[in-house]
Amino acid sequence: MKALSDTHICIIGTGLMGASLALALRGKVRHLHGIDPDPSAAPCFDTFSSQLHSLYNADVIVLAAPIHVILDLLPQVGAFAAAGALITDLGSVKAPIIAAMEGLPPRVQAVGGHPMCGKELSGAAAAEATLYQGCTFALCKAERTSQTALAFMESLIYAVGGQPLHLAAAVHDQAVAHISHLPYLLSVALMLDAAAAADETFWQLASSGFRDTSRLASSDVTMMGDVVTGNRAALLQALADYRAQIERLQTLLAAEDDSALRAALETARQARQAWLLYRERRKA
Amino acid sequence: MKALSDTHICIIGTGLMGASLALALRGKVRHLHGIDPDPSAAPCFDTFSSQLHSLYNADVIVLAAPIHVILDLLPQVGAFAAAGALITDLGSVKAPIIAAMEGLPPRVQAVGGHPMCGKELSGAAAAEATLYQGCTFALCKAERTSQTALAFMESLIYAVGGQPLHLAAAVHDQAVAHISHLPYLLSVALMLDAAAAADETFWQLASSGFRDTSRLASSDVTMMGDVVTGNRAALLQALADYRAQIERLQTLLAAEDDSALRAALETARQARQAWLLYRERRKA
Repeated sequence: MKALSDTHICIIGTGLMGASLALALRGKVRHLHGIDPDPSAAPCFDTFSSQLHSLYNADVIVLAAPIHVILDLLPQVGAFAAAGALITDLGSVKAPIIAAMEGLPPRVQAVGGHPMCGKELSGAAAAEATLYQGCTFALCKAERTSQTALAFMESLIYAVGGQPLHLAAAVHDQAVAHISHLPYLLSVALMLDAAAAADETFWQLASSGFRDTSRLASSDVTMMGDVVTGNRAALLQALADYRAQIERLQTLLAAEDDSALRAALETARQARQAWLLYRERRKA
Repeated sequence: MKALSDTHICIIGTGLMGASLALALRGKVRHLHGIDPDPSAAPCFDTFSSQLHSLYNADVIVLAAPIHVILDLLPQVGAFAAAGALITDLGSVKAPIIAAMEGLPPRVQAVGGHPMCGKELSGAAAAEATLYQGCTFALCKAERTSQTALAFMESLIYAVGGQPLHLAAAVHDQAVAHISHLPYLLSVALMLDAAAAADETFWQLASSGFRDTSRLASSDVTMMGDVVTGNRAALLQALADYRAQIERLQTLLAAEDDSALRAALETARQARQAWLLYRERRKA
């Protein structure tokens, strides 16, 4: 494969993630081409089109769209792509995408990607060149994925300030069920609980704790609907595990076993402090 | 009662909330006296003591301590307080505190308070003069609470940039169970779930969504243990209501009823956007 600086990169789907990737890659690649029916991200790219076949001369094609769109587009992207082109994606669930990548024509290369960054805002207007700075960027191999493709992806990830992390798709999907998709559903359930009360007092008293715990409920529903249904089995297991934790807290509270309850609160506090330290060390 | 600017204010408990209140009141009152066994917040006050009886000449006494400490101290504070002094507090659960305030000697005044601000850091080192800016500050009357006491508290709340909100203690406690104490337990359960996996991949992939949804799990356990056990009945009801929401999402996901699931995600998203707008209008 060519070096990153000599590469023509095409990004399909130019919302928050795709447009931010383009901004982060500016000046580091030969050419940036965007494809989206909505042209609002065009200023982030050297060239822009609404037509999928305009990807024909790209060296690297990044699918930055909701999962069902990635799955729908993959066969056409494979058909339009030049021989030797590398096809990758930014989807939050990897097993179904890796499976679909195995069906691409042999003349193209493929590897799955998932950057652990983003925000609850969507669309090109929210794009930031620094979105990928310090971000763990999961790479999931297909059977067909070559070492050169993985090495190229690492160079791209380092160029935008991220840290590559190689994971099997199933391991990735199980972990993100617990640390990404579960927190989203907790936020949703919290909002639904508060909204069900239909009591203005709730909204008057809700403060920064509620704001942060409910933040993910503002996420784009098209994207997150795909994510939760795309990772159904792993997320159902995570929900069952999480409910067991909630039920244990509820049982201790109801039984007035306050010393065991406080011990659980302390275990959670220490786990979070340990994670914050781990995270700082990784970023340093 | 004296006007705020002519008042000697004593704050008992000089951690995050008490020390921040002192910083916010500097230059707006005649004298600020702090009481705490730990003298680290002394620079925030005109005078400071570890001795409770040093409150004897205060016009206003603010209890800014964990709930069980407030309940333990109230009788002694009532005994030491000057005739006509106003006793108030910053505790997160109001019914037990208001009940205890009814037992204070008739020569003192009393009103319950609860500012809806704070952060997951504790202690005087985290104190900020702006902590109360824009904060909804609940006021809960006891039977004995006079109109002049309420008017004084309003002037104090406005002086630190807050917005008073008059609520019955039971109404307050039910609302905060849902929008404050429940989010804390969700965060705790999320951390316990992630920690139970004991899988470094989880920590590597955990990102800003996990960080925000788990933030409250870092809260001080002494304070929050008192809060959740002090608001037991309302919090158990909130947990039951919340579990029903989680179980509904889980049922829809398991049944592959994806259109109903997406509708629920959209309801939550719209409720949060509506709350954000409501909040902006209130602050404007």
